Amino acid sequence: MNRMALVRHLCAHPGLSRSDLAEAVGLTKSTVSLLVRGLIEEGWLVEREVVTTGDLGRRPTPLFIDPARLLLLGVEIGIDAVRVVATSLTGELQACVISPHATEPTADSCIASLAAALLKVRSQFDANRRILGIGIGIPGSVDADRGVVQQAPNLGWHAVPFAALLRETLRDTPLTGVPLFVLNEAGAAALGEHEFNPGSNSNPLLYVSINQGLGAGVVVDGRLLTGSRHYAGEVGHMVLQHNGARCSCGRRGCAEALIAAPLMPYLPGNPGALEPDPQALNSAGRHLGMLLQNLATAYDPGCIVLGGAAMTVGDSFLQPALDVLKDYATAARLAPPTVRTSRFGAHAVGIGAAALARHRLTRPTPPLPASGGLSTDSKESA
Amino acid sequence: MNRMALVRHLCAHPGLSRSDLAEAVGLTKSTVSLLVRGLIEEGWLVEREVVTTGDLGRRPTPLFIDPARLLLLGVEIGIDAVRVVATSLTGELQACVISPHATEPTADSCIASLAAALLKVRSQFDANRRILGIGIGIPGSVDADRGVVQQAPNLGWHAVPFAALLRETLRDTPLTGVPLFVLNEAGAAALGEHEFNPGSNSNPLLYVSINQGLGAGVVVDGRLLTGSRHYAGEVGHMVLQHNGARCSCGRRGCAEALIAAPLMPYLPGNPGALEPDPQALNSAGRHLGMLLQNLATAYDPGCIVLGGAAMTVGDSFLQPALDVLKDYATAARLAPPTVRTSRFGAHAVGIGAAALARHRLTRPTPPLPASGGLSTDSKESA
Repeated sequence: MNRMALVRHLCAHPGLSRSDLAEAVGLTKSTVSLLVRGLIEEGWLVEREVVTTGDLGRRPTPLFIDPARLLLLGVEIGIDAVRVVATSLTGELQACVISPHATEPTADSCIASLAAALLKVRSQFDANRRILGIGIGIPGSVDADRGVVQQAPNLGWHAVPFAALLRETLRDTPLTGVPLFVLNEAGAAALGEHEFNPGSNSNPLLYVSINQGLGAGVVVDGRLLTGSRHYAGEVGHMVLQHNGARCSCGRRGCAEALIAAPLMPYLPGNPGALEPDPQALNSAGRHLGMLLQNLATAYDPGCIVLGGAAMTVGDSFLQPALDVLKDYATAARLAPPTVRTSRFGAHAVGIGAAALARHRLTRPTPPLPASGGLSTDSKESA
Repeated sequence: MNRMALVRHLCAHPGLSRSDLAEAVGLTKSTVSLLVRGLIEEGWLVEREVVTTGDLGRRPTPLFIDPARLLLLGVEIGIDAVRVVATSLTGELQACVISPHATEPTADSCIASLAAALLKVRSQFDANRRILGIGIGIPGSVDADRGVVQQAPNLGWHAVPFAALLRETLRDTPLTGVPLFVLNEAGAAALGEHEFNPGSNSNPLLYVSINQGLGAGVVVDGRLLTGSRHYAGEVGHMVLQHNGARCSCGRRGCAEALIAAPLMPYLPGNPGALEPDPQALNSAGRHLGMLLQNLATAYDPGCIVLGGAAMTVGDSFLQPALDVLKDYATAARLAPPTVRTSRFGAHAVGIGAAALARHRLTRPTPPLPASGGLSTDSKESA
């Protein structure tokens, strides 16, 4: 995996020279030069012109991830539609196809419609533009290693071998054999904010996704928290109110029931959206503030990123959340956590899913679950 | 760090042979044999007798962490006392000294009393028993890299350079120069449950500490979550009730105010403890259930371990918590998370602090904060 170690390093530190890279990854300069030549030929890396500054002589050539040749596909499986984007290796949006669901999507109908949308995006590029991988973000809990959707309550799915089904559907098409990666939608969006933001040092990075469902993705030291059963970050079912409103999960007082569900009638994008009810938006926002306080306490994130359809509601929802966070911080004489909305707006999950593909393709196989005193790090890079 | 990689591997997988180790860490068998010889001489490892089973011939000699020679010291800085333990490299308790605080302990008086207790424990062993390191668990947020206590509200400490002060106090004593490691008490206890439990594959492991303060430590893939400012796991300040009871931090409705504070008058160990009030214990227990539900949702732990002085209250406090967890699970038709009390009882923090010392001594320097797409793993083991 030495080649991909170079790519990973340049993702985080654009503009390094071959010598810089050699030092950073512990290889000889001649090995690095050889690997870099191959990576440039294949479209991963690009050299940029050196600005010569008079008498300092020729500077080492800076290397960058090539934003022009290779492509990633990213998919958001939404409750209402499938959204497919194509991005460059550095996350710039290159194409987008949205395919609304006709009715309640079964896994089969959804996969058929997804395959068609993927091929439509593929057809917008010359055949010689190579597609490295397809990432897919799904509103539910996903066993990413096996590509299986464990539970997607808002889609009514249970134990769907999504990657295997999609792989089969894409057989004998121009996308045959392209690697597939499936993840929870908030996890994918969190990876997008992390991977496609090289200047950032928000660690941990917490992404909170508010759609019909509510979930979070947490990236710590460059890796997504997954938990023991792929449920880490399912924070829509944190309880904010004892005996509160009934949640779709069956419990009472969950964040999802107090924040996401009450917003749904007011989303501008919804057909038949109601006039905003200031009190409902304020209450949902204040509960969001309480949730963010609790998440900040649990993970101590360097930055909290908010995304999802609920962002379209705007300040009448978000401002009360920020006010509550600030009130808690003031009471404890601390600075409130840093909160911002997603840099990729409505494409946060799709572009995040493209980032997921890059993340997985440029890394060694995922570490085994650690036990006892053994760090998996040494195994991974052994 | 190849030597310590072998030690780490044997911590997690006791009984491996030299060949097993060579394969596991990617070294030649002759290199491993050489390193193992040194580690045996120094007291880290021990060979055990092979049971010969007739015609199978001689089996490779199994290696173990030596439980008999080297020592670790672990410290709990409590609100009421300093507790020092000595343990073997595998976590067995070898000695214990408890030194109650005379009055409200300042950092200086506490460090003086700690130094005396450490030397008292040291004096219980022959001079030739080597002490590898001293771990210290503190009820507050700690910058572990610098050994600085950022905040310890229940001790009234702020920005105390604890490691530096203790190092100075131990100068020219039999403990001069022994490496010191400082951490939040719940984090230390979490490492204890992880490091000294080789059979476990609870990943993440969540330890919830309930004393006058309430906090958690989370071990993911063999590493403690620390957060962006060393505040990760400060879950005593998760808000469980809007406008609830005032917390010592200044906020309202924090877990600490609803769970830990109401228990304090009833702790059997407290001088002047009151007769248990079933309603108060039940209410605190039910709030603990709500907190554990939220923590299970945030981290998806393989196991939740409970510890701290509150455990002495017993089932009238713990059973309501388990009941609430079970009710939530039943409502969502899921299995409740696995919950148990600490294996080390009243020594959970002290033995955990000893584990902290082993954890830090057998690992490379902590990874740098990751940014962009670069995993720090490759750096660490490069």
